[in-house]
Amino acid sequence: MNQKISRKKFFKDIFKYSTGAAVGAAAGGILLPKNVPAQKETPPLPWPYAKLDPDQGRILGHDYYSQGGCGYAGFAGILKQLQDKQGEPFTRIPAEMFGYAGGGVKGWGTICGALNGAAAALSLVCDSKSSGLVIDELIGWYTESLLPTDTSNLFAVSDKYATKNNIAELPQNKSGSPLCHISLSGWCAFSGFSVGSPEQLERCSRLSGDVVAKATALLNAQKAGTFKAEYLGSKSISDCLGCHDREQEVGNVDTKMSCVVCHDDPHS
Amino acid sequence: MNQKISRKKFFKDIFKYSTGAAVGAAAGGILLPKNVPAQKETPPLPWPYAKLDPDQGRILGHDYYSQGGCGYAGFAGILKQLQDKQGEPFTRIPAEMFGYAGGGVKGWGTICGALNGAAAALSLVCDSKSSGLVIDELIGWYTESLLPTDTSNLFAVSDKYATKNNIAELPQNKSGSPLCHISLSGWCAFSGFSVGSPEQLERCSRLSGDVVAKATALLNAQKAGTFKAEYLGSKSISDCLGCHDREQEVGNVDTKMSCVVCHDDPHS
Repeated sequence: MNQKISRKKFFKDIFKYSTGAAVGAAAGGILLPKNVPAQKETPPLPWPYAKLDPDQGRILGHDYYSQGGCGYAGFAGILKQLQDKQGEPFTRIPAEMFGYAGGGVKGWGTICGALNGAAAALSLVCDSKSSGLVIDELIGWYTESLLPTDTSNLFAVSDKYATKNNIAELPQNKSGSPLCHISLSGWCAFSGFSVGSPEQLERCSRLSGDVVAKATALLNAQKAGTFKAEYLGSKSISDCLGCHDREQEVGNVDTKMSCVVCHDDPHS
Repeated sequence: MNQKISRKKFFKDIFKYSTGAAVGAAAGGILLPKNVPAQKETPPLPWPYAKLDPDQGRILGHDYYSQGGCGYAGFAGILKQLQDKQGEPFTRIPAEMFGYAGGGVKGWGTICGALNGAAAALSLVCDSKSSGLVIDELIGWYTESLLPTDTSNLFAVSDKYATKNNIAELPQNKSGSPLCHISLSGWCAFSGFSVGSPEQLERCSRLSGDVVAKATALLNAQKAGTFKAEYLGSKSISDCLGCHDREQEVGNVDTKMSCVVCHDDPHS
């Protein structure tokens, strides 16, 4: 379709379509700014990525925890960097939508909110296969790493809460699980600090920062073509799925979580 | 500030700000539509809600499962209704962003993707307190209800997959948990159908529809002022938190999931 229009109609239509906004703006004594684009449809995913800074993400993720919990921290720690750096279309999404994910979804203790939020944010800039690789690595790293990482100096600069409570070092443990309930209770039992204590809140703040930093580093690697999976999966998974995988006779299991965190190991 | 501008500058500026888009459009033989508004900032949450139809949501949630998994189904089943009914600002969010949540987040078996997606979507139209009430009720209902609900006639109309495989009735069980792994494995063990079988896929499709329908009904009630919580919490939670709550000496637990699904009951 390449319908020609007359020069007269062209300028008439320009006037028709632009007058309303321009008149409204002119009435207030200003003109439309140069860079206000027309309202566009939201482009399909994935959206373009620009390299982010993991250390910046760590501080943001940490500090956002006190503003909206771990789910918000994990999501906003990535999204707001993308918004600041690229604006549209990332500014279409309100980071606050992930407030629901805190405490494993409104305190239910399911998936760690930082993981949930970060996984959602990185899915905006990855196709499904790539986000699968990055999310597997992110969650695998989370379950097998000593967390929170020892970055107290970094946090001390950014965080009024940590400084106020004079919290520097914090006990580190491996959660063994992406579930908030297991991660949180495991750390509290290990450290002796109660749920709701300043130390636990600071632990989850730092952990949110750690998740954002790791997700950012993985995204950078994935986009640079240097991503290499280091998490090889829980050994219990491969043992147990030998009988319980969908291809087997007792095909009733489909998970990537370690089995022996909750189930007895029949081979021990 | 009420700076006057000359008529000449007024028309010059109109031309300047509109030429790029209009020329681009004219080159393709079309002109900009009349109702293209200027790009606005994304409004803060919550966004306005208009009553939705639970049965419509059930069919959408069910059918979207085959397009993008349970996480997409739970999110899109609500979001796309809001987009169709209200357009902006809901059209700013790509429903596909919740593809990552399938299978309890990329197959990890954490929170059921339908719950995760529906919780995120309803959080767009609720303040934090309201979404907490609705999400608690939604997840509590999910854990204690016989699912999938017996709505095979409704699905038979909409679903080529179910019809093709001639799946009418499906075994129903109570998951006892919002976790994909427990919900899925429990149903497979109960029904005898393997993970990945047509019956399991149809079960999770229907369950996604059920979650969207329930979330929609709860939203309608919450917005109409008729919401009443029916889920009272697991008894094991109140028993166990008698010692393990944050206020107690062994304050290392913060969850709403039933304890005895995974832990032995020390009182039995």
